[in-house]
Formats: sequence, structure tokens, C-alpha cells
Amino acid sequence: MVEGDKIVSEIIKQEPARIEQLFLTANWLKRSGLSSGQKSALPIIILKPGEMERISSFRSPPEAIALIQIPHYKLKVDEIAGKLSLVLDKVQDPGNLGNIIRIADWFGIDNIICSADCADCFNPKVLQSSMGSIMRIRIHYTGLGILLQKLTQLPEFGIYGTFPQASDIYTADLLPKGIIVMGNESKGITSELLPFIRERISIPCFLHRSGKIDSLNVAAATAIICSEFMRRRR
Amino acid sequence: MVEGDKIVSEIIKQEPARIEQLFLTANWLKRSGLSSGQKSALPIIILKPGEMERISSFRSPPEAIALIQIPHYKLKVDEIAGKLSLVLDKVQDPGNLGNIIRIADWFGIDNIICSADCADCFNPKVLQSSMGSIMRIRIHYTGLGILLQKLTQLPEFGIYGTFPQASDIYTADLLPKGIIVMGNESKGITSELLPFIRERISIPCFLHRSGKIDSLNVAAATAIICSEFMRRRR
Repeated sequence: MVEGDKIVSEIIKQEPARIEQLFLTANWLKRSGLSSGQKSALPIIILKPGEMERISSFRSPPEAIALIQIPHYKLKVDEIAGKLSLVLDKVQDPGNLGNIIRIADWFGIDNIICSADCADCFNPKVLQSSMGSIMRIRIHYTGLGILLQKLTQLPEFGIYGTFPQASDIYTADLLPKGIIVMGNESKGITSELLPFIRERISIPCFLHRSGKIDSLNVAAATAIICSEFMRRRR
Repeated sequence: MVEGDKIVSEIIKQEPARIEQLFLTANWLKRSGLSSGQKSALPIIILKPGEMERISSFRSPPEAIALIQIPHYKLKVDEIAGKLSLVLDKVQDPGNLGNIIRIADWFGIDNIICSADCADCFNPKVLQSSMGSIMRIRIHYTGLGILLQKLTQLPEFGIYGTFPQASDIYTADLLPKGIIVMGNESKGITSELLPFIRERISIPCFLHRSGKIDSLNVAAATAIICSEFMRRRR
């Protein structure tokens, strides 16, 4: 269930075939700019604002809600072997996950592989913060230990993990094919995955104050790391 | 009012003098590791979990809440003139603002200048997502038009604004002194500020799909831009 005026517009434009049902207010439909042809092709149910409030999971209900098919992707090591992917180890905040999906979309990363204990990517908050990028990224949930073990057998394939103190991301050798493992918001990468990490990288802290800060938010760190990988590729 | 077990610990460690009152559960205090000297120097009130629930603004109340003095900083053009600062034009989401404060802290940026219509930096959600960085960053609220007009008179001072299509951030000339203007989540930079922007920059989109994405989240974009400015400085 995808809620929100903007994200529903985007889904109608990009992935109309995946829509099972659209719940819209009459007002939203009028403003939508949809042609009468489009309108008749879509499974629209008009609801009153009070009815939207009853089905919405948000405190202030949107004027558009879509039910979409949950996609199921097959995780193929061969595909992962040929490109850069993100691996999320217990990223639990839905806003962070949504944001990371959007970052992956921006940087042309096709696959995000999540540990089974990551936030659910179909959680309404993830959907909302992913802003439609969820429709384009292949998100997989799997046991990371087994996958990483398989990936260590690939030649010229980077298995990067982020750590508080490690090789400076700006000068580290970054391969175009590989995975970037991002850890849990407060605990970092699970100890059982550590043996599989080939290169430990970190974003240098430029703090010149006496205070110490913990770490960057995991989505901000993902943005910086993906940006640096992509900068090198050009 | 700052809520949350982790952030309150950080404030006790870093800025005990700013604390007006601490509301803690007995359980939290026991686990805190504070010495008896520290405990007696702090204005602690022990509350029962049910009482915490009544004063907390969160759905699941924390075990530690601090009342801290709101700092007031004077915005001096002379100080801004000598370093890199962030300027936020109507950044309205509290989570984004908190995250940007944390990013500024990481990259050693001392000042964030907000338009009057930005989210309030003392909003509980901002405080929580800033994770204690709010204690170290000088946040100012002011009319941006007047400030930017003054700043345009400075020599060798960059006034950068982010736009969907502009100079590639990875190759643009980035001065060590200047401001980076980040615009509103959906509308970007206000039109009245455009004449003052000296260099328009953007983060190239590496999307190879047919779909189009709107933009990166403003906090993710800020992270990438600050990272690139800092990388060049080393």
C-alpha cells in the first residue's frame, strides 16, 4: 500500500501495470492531469476524505493511495558479480532504508541485498521516503553470511565494509564491481560478516572540535560512499 | 527538551553546564555509569516510567529526558567570510534538518544559517536526529536575502546553490570559503535568492534506467556536497 499524492502520481506514470487498485479523492483526480483514456484504464475507486482517513496509516491522510503488486526478484550471484550493489546488514530505521533506496536509484545501483532483519521495504514509511525509487530497485532479503561467502570466490570483486577507522574512502582503491556492506545504525556490521569483508573503508571525519561524534547517519554515509565510487568511474 | 537515552548521555558527557534539568528513570541512572560525584553535580529528578510517559512527546517514552538552555548565537558576517557554511532555504522536514546538522558536525562546518521558514532546530525530532551535534553547531535563523546580498561583496567567496542541472560537483571549482545553499525539499531554492548564487552546482545522476527520479533527499545531497568540498581541501 503506497500512500501519498506525489508518489502515487509517479507510480501512475511509471508503473501503471503494477497497480491493483487506486483510492483517490475526487479532488485529487481533478488536479491529476490524467486524460480520460488513462482514467478509464486505471482501477480507480473514488473515496471521500473521511474514507481516506479510515484506510490511511498516516496521521494526516493523503488524497491518493495505491495498492501495488509486491515484486519478487530472484537473487542471482552472476548478476551481482558484474556490477556494484549495496548490502544492508540490519538497517532498521524505515526512513533510512527508504532514503538508501533513493540513493541507489540516483547512482544507478540496481540491487540492494538486505539481511532478513532489516526494515521491511514495503513498510509504508519506507515506501514514502523512497519516493517511487522502490519501483526500480531490486530489493532482496537473504542470509548475508552465505551470500558473502559465495562472493569471496569472485576475482576482482570488491567486498567493502564501512568502519569508524579504516582506509580513507577518498584514496582507497575502489573497484567498479563489488558490494558495499552498510551496518546497523548503532552497532555497525555484524561480527559474523567481518571475515568476508575484503576492504575496510571509512569516511574521514573533519571535526576540529573537542567533541566527538558517533557516526554519520547510515543513509548519509551511503550517499557519500556511493558518490565516491561513482566519481571514480567517470 | 531533549529526549532519548543515547542523546542525553552525550549531553551529560559533553555539555553538562547547559543542562537545566534531567528527568531519568532509576533504572537508567543505575545503568548510566555516572560517578556519585557526577550524579550530585547534575540537576536530576527521578521519575517512574509512567511519569516519563506523561512528559515525553514520543509514543514510546525514553528513560532519559533533559531540559537544556537554548543557545543564542550572533551571526557575524566576518566569521562566515572566513570559512565554509551551510545555508538552508526552507528545509522543512525535521528529520532532514537533524541529519544535516549531524553532517555539518562530521565535516567540521561550524555554522548553519536557516531561513526563518525552516523547521525549528529545537523541535524534538530535529534534536533526536541530530544525535547531539546540535550542541556543537551554531544555528542561526535570519532573512537570507539580506545576508546573501552582503556576502556577494566578499572576494574569493563562493556562493554555491544546488540545481537539478548545473556544473558537475565533481569537476566544479570549489573554493574553501563560501556558503552552500540547499533548497526546499520539493521546490528547491526560492526565486528571490537566485540572483545571489554565484555558482550553480549539481550532483550528476548516474541513472541508466528509463525511469526518472526527482532528486536526492536534501540531507543525502548535503552529505555528498560537503564530502566533495572536504575531499578537495585535503
